[in-house]
Amino acid sequence: MQITDIIRKKKNGGVLSAEEITFFVDGYTKGEIPDYQASALLMAIWFAGMNKEETSLLTMSYVHSGETIDLSDIPGIKVDKHSTGGVGDKVSLIVLPVVASLGIPVAKLSGRGLGHTGGTVDKLESIPGFCTEMDLDRFKNQVRTHGVAIAGQTGHLTPADKKIYALRDVTETVDSIPLIAASIMSKKLAAGSDAIVLDVKTGEGAFMKSLEESRALAQTMVDIGRHLGKRTVAVLTEMNEPLGREIGNANEVKEAISILRGEKIPGLYEVVVEISAYMAWLGGAAPTQETARPLVEKVLQEGSALKTLKRLIADQGGDANVVEDPDRLPQAANHREVCSDRAGFVQQIIATDIGYAAMHLGAGRQTKEDRLDYAAGIHLNHRVGDRVEKGDVLCTLWYNDADPQESEQLAKAAFVLGDEPAKEKGSILEVVGALS
Amino acid sequence: MQITDIIRKKKNGGVLSAEEITFFVDGYTKGEIPDYQASALLMAIWFAGMNKEETSLLTMSYVHSGETIDLSDIPGIKVDKHSTGGVGDKVSLIVLPVVASLGIPVAKLSGRGLGHTGGTVDKLESIPGFCTEMDLDRFKNQVRTHGVAIAGQTGHLTPADKKIYALRDVTETVDSIPLIAASIMSKKLAAGSDAIVLDVKTGEGAFMKSLEESRALAQTMVDIGRHLGKRTVAVLTEMNEPLGREIGNANEVKEAISILRGEKIPGLYEVVVEISAYMAWLGGAAPTQETARPLVEKVLQEGSALKTLKRLIADQGGDANVVEDPDRLPQAANHREVCSDRAGFVQQIIATDIGYAAMHLGAGRQTKEDRLDYAAGIHLNHRVGDRVEKGDVLCTLWYNDADPQESEQLAKAAFVLGDEPAKEKGSILEVVGALS
Repeated sequence: MQITDIIRKKKNGGVLSAEEITFFVDGYTKGEIPDYQASALLMAIWFAGMNKEETSLLTMSYVHSGETIDLSDIPGIKVDKHSTGGVGDKVSLIVLPVVASLGIPVAKLSGRGLGHTGGTVDKLESIPGFCTEMDLDRFKNQVRTHGVAIAGQTGHLTPADKKIYALRDVTETVDSIPLIAASIMSKKLAAGSDAIVLDVKTGEGAFMKSLEESRALAQTMVDIGRHLGKRTVAVLTEMNEPLGREIGNANEVKEAISILRGEKIPGLYEVVVEISAYMAWLGGAAPTQETARPLVEKVLQEGSALKTLKRLIADQGGDANVVEDPDRLPQAANHREVCSDRAGFVQQIIATDIGYAAMHLGAGRQTKEDRLDYAAGIHLNHRVGDRVEKGDVLCTLWYNDADPQESEQLAKAAFVLGDEPAKEKGSILEVVGALS
Repeated sequence: MQITDIIRKKKNGGVLSAEEITFFVDGYTKGEIPDYQASALLMAIWFAGMNKEETSLLTMSYVHSGETIDLSDIPGIKVDKHSTGGVGDKVSLIVLPVVASLGIPVAKLSGRGLGHTGGTVDKLESIPGFCTEMDLDRFKNQVRTHGVAIAGQTGHLTPADKKIYALRDVTETVDSIPLIAASIMSKKLAAGSDAIVLDVKTGEGAFMKSLEESRALAQTMVDIGRHLGKRTVAVLTEMNEPLGREIGNANEVKEAISILRGEKIPGLYEVVVEISAYMAWLGGAAPTQETARPLVEKVLQEGSALKTLKRLIADQGGDANVVEDPDRLPQAANHREVCSDRAGFVQQIIATDIGYAAMHLGAGRQTKEDRLDYAAGIHLNHRVGDRVEKGDVLCTLWYNDADPQESEQLAKAAFVLGDEPAKEKGSILEVVGALS
């Protein structure tokens, strides 16, 4: 078999066989196929696409390229959750304790943030002492005994995806639905869960800008999951403004604690309940997603999910008292209020710009090597739909050593004001794969 | 400027600017842009194409990447000729002496053969002593004093094309009309001629299999030529059977001599007259291509073109007596006749297979490093349209050390016989760019 034959087949619109996909993925991972042929094939896939069968085969090739985690010796239906990434997305911090409180074992591998989006591991590490590095035995043992563990992603899972993603990143082949879907789903499958709930962020601040793109990605991932025998649901959620009121690390943990204390923060609360209820249903806590909703709302209102978070923090070496006293989390020395130049109604809060503004304050990474300032971040004083007067505070920047100049400009421009009241959009746009 | 921005623009169907094309070509040639980004861009061009303006800009970027030859101090209109490559294509060996005999200065850089196609330089080197390597001063001096010189291509011209072609060759991005057109035209433009006649071979034995593809390539090259101020004509010629009766090196020289002695070998003669007449017209020897034809036929019949070839051979150190005594050319020790298993009419002679059969006898190169056997080759005893009986000799293989087994099978299978007389196809299919 020759890689050039595979490239030619794909560029001419052909359907790659299992052998051809494996030949490419294995050969590239082992360094037998050079970067320049891999990138030519990836660009051909960008144009010609992949059908369901090919995308599933690619996913499985990624899975088989490295280790996989076997959770079968942990009783119960293990439900994983993944977000395609947004601004202010602290949903995992909340839904994982919620579903663990409902008796669903949670064995979660999470990532770090880059650019304008944050990562769950970074947010958890803003809790003093919290450790996300642990070996597989300890990870599984914690899930078995206390029902929930959250660890950083290990390099031993899906090395093919890691190497191919790095090449896609520099050859403009990231934004291909089959390639994105295979990348995400392979990591979920290698992590060993039984069912998967995907939060597909949609809108200006997300990777998928339009509902059509989001729907296509969601359907592709649901198809892969089903093809490979994993119940999969994708919830399309709104990302035209940041999720919730906090963007950063420690401040997002605080906001998560507020929700776990029963506060119904608009936008964020709806997404948390929707995702948790799908996870609870798939995990067997309720016969339908609808009947799972009141269970979720109960653990939020009664504080049992908050207790689960407290135990999780203690289990992983963190200062569990932050749950009662969030001021123990890192606090920024300086703040600057960003005020409105005019009166009007907030039409939009450009999430990407808020994300980059937070990054420049130290809350995010411009390059993988950057160190984070856990205390840095942005508090949104208003959200879309609000009426503001001239001079009102739109948002507040929190920082230590950073120069807030650029962030202030970005944050100010992110608030788009108009004369007419903005139409309220729902937080949940669509659900794909729920009817099974 | 970032190469990723250029890749993204092209993959999304954008039109690249002069700055972007130059940034890519220069950056890649200098090694500042890695292979994997260049191949991603080339595949994006394969899919998204390039418009006339972009293709001309790419051509000029190739030209400017290296040295160019200035022929302006040689009086007269210098007309170059290029063939896209076929089997048995000895047209240059004939038309260059023909147009030189009409007073048109010929300064020709030619290539070597690879795979199933031959090269003019290899054919000339089958003449004992003939040298195709010379410095630019000697080359130009020979054109100035004797009207014609033929040299091998130098590595100093269009190095960008050379490097990009090598990458295209291993990334399945060769068969892109703008990329082919820019590659061919840049070499012609760097070589300094005033006008260009292109022989676009069309059919099974050629790179362009269909008339539609050939027409598109021809039009693209004619557009580039005009855009850059060079009168350019493309003649689409038939390549569903080999051109003429000889395939090899020394035997093709012999066949060229036969034509220059006035023999009207079917198929070959028509192409020679057509191409020569376009070159003669563009070179100013006649007011139209039609009026140039009798001039061409005259130099063929009266032997003045043969005398020009003789002087060219002598000028370049070769044994000029081969012109009167072609048996002085290398002769093969062995031959094998390939006979027909059945009676019928020859419907097709698959040119690619005849080309590979000749290659296996030693007449062509499988890899660039292979040495040629100048005496090896194939003589076609029949052509399309002929009636053959069972046992008739279809073709004769000539060889020295090679094992003729594989060539015999290939050559036999190349002759497609049928019960009905085959329709005679013309050798000249179409002409693009003649009306200017």
